[in-house]
Amino acid sequence: MKLIRFGEKGSEKPGVVDGAGKIRDVSSIVADYGPETLSPALIEKLAASDLSSLPAAPEGARIGAPVSRIGHFIAIGLNYADHAAETGAAIPAEPIVFSKAPNSLSGPNDDVVMPRGSKKLDWEVELAIVIGKRADYVEESDALDYVLGYALCNDVSEREFQAERGGQWMKGKSAPTFGPLGPWIATRDEIADPQALDMFLDVNGQRCQTGSSKTMIFGVAHIVSYLSQFMVLEPGDVITTGTPPGVGLGMKPPKFLKVGDTMHLGIAGLGEQRQTVVAR
Amino acid sequence: MKLIRFGEKGSEKPGVVDGAGKIRDVSSIVADYGPETLSPALIEKLAASDLSSLPAAPEGARIGAPVSRIGHFIAIGLNYADHAAETGAAIPAEPIVFSKAPNSLSGPNDDVVMPRGSKKLDWEVELAIVIGKRADYVEESDALDYVLGYALCNDVSEREFQAERGGQWMKGKSAPTFGPLGPWIATRDEIADPQALDMFLDVNGQRCQTGSSKTMIFGVAHIVSYLSQFMVLEPGDVITTGTPPGVGLGMKPPKFLKVGDTMHLGIAGLGEQRQTVVAR
Repeated sequence: MKLIRFGEKGSEKPGVVDGAGKIRDVSSIVADYGPETLSPALIEKLAASDLSSLPAAPEGARIGAPVSRIGHFIAIGLNYADHAAETGAAIPAEPIVFSKAPNSLSGPNDDVVMPRGSKKLDWEVELAIVIGKRADYVEESDALDYVLGYALCNDVSEREFQAERGGQWMKGKSAPTFGPLGPWIATRDEIADPQALDMFLDVNGQRCQTGSSKTMIFGVAHIVSYLSQFMVLEPGDVITTGTPPGVGLGMKPPKFLKVGDTMHLGIAGLGEQRQTVVAR
Repeated sequence: MKLIRFGEKGSEKPGVVDGAGKIRDVSSIVADYGPETLSPALIEKLAASDLSSLPAAPEGARIGAPVSRIGHFIAIGLNYADHAAETGAAIPAEPIVFSKAPNSLSGPNDDVVMPRGSKKLDWEVELAIVIGKRADYVEESDALDYVLGYALCNDVSEREFQAERGGQWMKGKSAPTFGPLGPWIATRDEIADPQALDMFLDVNGQRCQTGSSKTMIFGVAHIVSYLSQFMVLEPGDVITTGTPPGVGLGMKPPKFLKVGDTMHLGIAGLGEQRQTVVAR
């Protein structure tokens, strides 16, 4: 099942994409998708509903992020061997974990706003995990049970803020609109193998990133299990799992986004996003 | 005014500490203290209420964290010159920013749970800022207007998880019970000068940390203004501002917490906390 939210920013409604690709409004079944409602029980309830009897979303409705609010927006760094190499970093021995501000979350096709003073705005197509059950010291063999589903994420990054302004990365990962997520959450049953998903990202129509989750250093099950040793994961938490090669920072010479540039990205089964960079 | 929450974990009620030190139940005025309700308008409303007409909290009620849910739990690292020196780190040129998992939040006197495999559990008495208004590119001269108030925080840390497990600090800052906050939020008007607050922390009755917010490298107004250049701060966000010297990591040889140890900490005007370390 594909969970989607549609409508103007701040007043989105929950929906499900039906077999014909139409968005059905499920707000009569669940008020919204968020930490309080996302659960295996909700998925069962939605799966049991007769989608054809539910109203369709208006044609051309804006698509919002598929969760209303993220409790914890976690990210894994340098998780593709080739990407680590292009940025000049060593292959990490354990997952590198950082966070994005929860309010960096944005709709999949919303404009990306360049922060004031930004000179090194960059893109990162990523597979994001959406947690569906409280995960506390979970074994790797059980970890996928805690995954509600998967979504496409652009882990938008300001490289100077991230790496040249004193230590930790979150300064360059947290501005509003730095977390386009969606268009939908594909529930776990839709994704036969999360470690075999092709992905791409184009800037201004030029292919920049081409990759597959099969080259992730630490896979989905390992990440969920690993994180649950350090913190408790909760329903609605989002973990974006790192990016394949082809980011601007890795180009020779590096190439960064400017106002008016467009990004187009996608992951097999998780849909596509299109963003335009705008001035603050 | 002192905003406090009392009752069992997960079902706390909001209260205000009256002139006689009694907790008055204000749940008839506001459902709870959190991102949706904390605001200057709420403070005005509570200030205008007749506390003496409101029910008192039961004697000996547990005190919860003074916010029900943190949207973003931000922390500043190495923000006291002497603490930077004791950990062997250089004085930072800009604030070092990291995050704690929002669900590390805990009551001021709740047990601190040692994570599995922990060998380097440490303490940090800190002045925490609670945000009261959305802050987006705020000037330092205006920054205090965005502060709802202040609270005492123990930024509990696992030093091996923080610094020896690959890069970013949040792994060692995010376990459940790693964020005791409170007992109360002292609203901004109660704290004449946030840069002149004495603080202490004892372990097993022995004084370990003695400090004052006057030796902070980056003060409250600077921190709020600085963060607002990288992310948007929202009501209910908590920013803990770094610790003075005297943490276990800085001792020669280093000294860490073990099960059964007790911590007792306080900041002038912000009350005191007492925690016992327990096994997971």
